[in-house]
Amino acid sequence: MTSLRSWFSIPRGSHFSLHNIPFGIISTPSSQRPRVAVAIGDHALDLQVFAASNGFSACSIIQPHQSVFSEPTLNAFAALGRPMHSVVREYIQSVFSKDTPFPDVLRNNTKLQKEALLSLSQVKMHLPMKIGDYTDFYAGLNHAYNCGCLFRTPQTALQPNYKHMPVGYHGRASSVVVSGTPIRRPHGQILLDPTAEKKVPTFSASRKLDFELELGAFICKTNKHGEPVPIQEAEQSLFGVVLLNDWSARDIQSWEAVPLGPFNSKNFASSISPWVVLADALEPFKTKAMENDAEVLPYLKETNPKSVYDIQLQVDLKTTAPDGKSSTITKTSGKHLLWSFPQMMAHHTVNGCPMQVGDMLGSGTISGTEPSEFGSLLEQSQNGRVAVKIADGEERNFLEDGDEIRITGVCGSDEDALVGFGQCVGRIEPAISLSIDG
Amino acid sequence: MTSLRSWFSIPRGSHFSLHNIPFGIISTPSSQRPRVAVAIGDHALDLQVFAASNGFSACSIIQPHQSVFSEPTLNAFAALGRPMHSVVREYIQSVFSKDTPFPDVLRNNTKLQKEALLSLSQVKMHLPMKIGDYTDFYAGLNHAYNCGCLFRTPQTALQPNYKHMPVGYHGRASSVVVSGTPIRRPHGQILLDPTAEKKVPTFSASRKLDFELELGAFICKTNKHGEPVPIQEAEQSLFGVVLLNDWSARDIQSWEAVPLGPFNSKNFASSISPWVVLADALEPFKTKAMENDAEVLPYLKETNPKSVYDIQLQVDLKTTAPDGKSSTITKTSGKHLLWSFPQMMAHHTVNGCPMQVGDMLGSGTISGTEPSEFGSLLEQSQNGRVAVKIADGEERNFLEDGDEIRITGVCGSDEDALVGFGQCVGRIEPAISLSIDG
Ligand SMILES: [Ca+2]
Ligand SMILES: [Ca+2]
Ligand SMILES: [Mg+2]
Ligand SMILES: [Mg+2]
Ligand code: NI
Repeated sequence: MTSLRSWFSIPRGSHFSLHNIPFGIISTPSSQRPRVAVAIGDHALDLQVFAASNGFSACSIIQPHQSVFSEPTLNAFAALGRPMHSVVREYIQSVFSKDTPFPDVLRNNTKLQKEALLSLSQVKMHLPMKIGDYTDFYAGLNHAYNCGCLFRTPQTALQPNYKHMPVGYHGRASSVVVSGTPIRRPHGQILLDPTAEKKVPTFSASRKLDFELELGAFICKTNKHGEPVPIQEAEQSLFGVVLLNDWSARDIQSWEAVPLGPFNSKNFASSISPWVVLADALEPFKTKAMENDAEVLPYLKETNPKSVYDIQLQVDLKTTAPDGKSSTITKTSGKHLLWSFPQMMAHHTVNGCPMQVGDMLGSGTISGTEPSEFGSLLEQSQNGRVAVKIADGEERNFLEDGDEIRITGVCGSDEDALVGFGQCVGRIEPAISLSIDG
Repeated sequence: MTSLRSWFSIPRGSHFSLHNIPFGIISTPSSQRPRVAVAIGDHALDLQVFAASNGFSACSIIQPHQSVFSEPTLNAFAALGRPMHSVVREYIQSVFSKDTPFPDVLRNNTKLQKEALLSLSQVKMHLPMKIGDYTDFYAGLNHAYNCGCLFRTPQTALQPNYKHMPVGYHGRASSVVVSGTPIRRPHGQILLDPTAEKKVPTFSASRKLDFELELGAFICKTNKHGEPVPIQEAEQSLFGVVLLNDWSARDIQSWEAVPLGPFNSKNFASSISPWVVLADALEPFKTKAMENDAEVLPYLKETNPKSVYDIQLQVDLKTTAPDGKSSTITKTSGKHLLWSFPQMMAHHTVNGCPMQVGDMLGSGTISGTEPSEFGSLLEQSQNGRVAVKIADGEERNFLEDGDEIRITGVCGSDEDALVGFGQCVGRIEPAISLSIDG
């Protein structure tokens, strides 16, 4: 594939090449109402301004729907459906292409360029979607296996259901925040001595605060309550993908999670990257999912063996050390999943559960097979038993106050044609001081 | 307490006495836009019409906010806060009282009576709130103990955390439906032989479909992300209460729920009663919660020992038998809870999790100590081992197609002063036929 060329300056290595065109919600100091934009190189194209200035004059099909670009979330745009997303993305690609058939729309229109093309350094990013329900799956087989080994044995690491269904649980939609939002260390109940006969919890700020490297997928299509989404149709419900950090308090988790699953250990915050990379843009990077040696039930059978995305994922940890050096602690790929997003959707709805536009599915933590490929500190430090070495002679079992976790993700290797996610960043703030003591 | 008397005819035994004044969302054949109403006796007072006709002329404090009564959910009204709910409820009580100080508002205004007082049999009820997040707790100690005994032993029935925290999990907001909505029997994975060495699931419609008798509480106050709601302030976040049937597919549940909790076994549907009984109306019926013999952490300590509601709860099962006789299968009280709603809120937010207006908390299944007081068929039939006898010589282990479950709840004994919930009804529809076979 040759890379698409633009008349507009897009830096080499940009995550937001002409091959991408991700959608997000921006505001600016001079125009503080959140609205829709796409990212292109170092800039955001303000689609509200672009639409108001007849930017879509050569794309008649979107014109009756242009008000979606003035909305404070992407939900209305998403609800237009994948065929419309394709039209809009391809039209914007054509407007920016070197030999654009529509030169007067933007290339020769310096006034509109000034008004609508905003430097990314000048725009504030907001949560891209109004999330109705957030479901977190557990499809990272290596992660599930690693966690199982920490708390059980290699033989019993995976539960009997693991290879038969994409195991998942409901998360907390209200605590999903956009990249850059500070993350407060949560308080909760922890059990200091799990071996004690009498189990009495302590009230404390979490001492085992962790990140989880995940992908988040957004839904763009509603199914009727009671009617499953067949796996063959599930792709049409997939709006796009973001990076997801499912922050986790391991000490709170281990005490609370039996029998109903994780709760306070997860619902204090989950961070996502602000630009939604459309399913269309990711299509060329589809690859085979992990091998499943169980026979899966028909409702979960993918017809296309390429069902997951080869996204190069990286996690960097930056401490408050004076030189502020950053350590890369994880490098892996989005392909290390046993279950695809269409499989998750088919499973989620097989009982008739209604999906709504804006719902988010988390992939589960993505880990490769080597420690340097593990997507959580729980796995890297073996639940705190082995310190992880980072820059400046420092080490970590879990996250300390002031630590910043930066997840990045990008597809492709042609520096002029990357399809990237930008970043998902969060920095740990000290626990709030509470008048109640434990 | 002497009962309040009205100039308006309220049938003896009505759940909606002048002491109640619950809020709901109605529409009518001639006016199909959903809007706010209160229930009074056999009637709904359409507050949109009432407000437009100067019904609130003698209640100046609500006037700037009257548009909340034209909203299709109660969220905007709820967000006004409990002091405003009190003012509005008390004003409506005074308008209807025998010696109303405002006779011209409604008592002497037959035109407005005709326009705004609608027979309940003529109005359609809608979901009262737009639910952001739904959390289901497990605070019914007897239920938790009964379930634990079925799957473990009496000694290990309760998990070690049970008496230290209100255990809960996130439910599915999108599948909460209003009373009367048919409930489709869900498909899913079930394990026919749990004792087999090799565990291979079957795809099937659920064969162990059950109800769960619960209360649902709605939140009316937002807390800032990162900042807990102290238990002393949690009452101010409590908008009101509804009856909740947390439909459960026990066969899907037992296969899926380890390690992340229930998922498809719950998220196909949860039904709620349409009228939200305000926290103020329930205040006189507060009583002591179940005794907790563990020392609870300070953040969970109630200062008022009366923290739960003595609501007389009843479950009736009606089959499709020709005579359509109904059997009362459960009678119990809302007081059989180890944890109160304020305790649930304090726990939910102790890590900074943000609550939003419209969020719903489920109590968990409420059971007394006798089989006739158990709030689920799982407990009554001991997971299908002992058939439950119902009318007409029929019996049930779990629900069959066509079965209707009707939950009712009412506080008080003075037939002229009841504070009731009306009913929460759902009828089981046969599973959808799927082209995919298991
Ligand atoms: Ca996770
Ligand atoms: Ca329940
Ligand atoms: Mg989280
Ligand atoms: Mg349910
Ligand atoms: Ni009438």
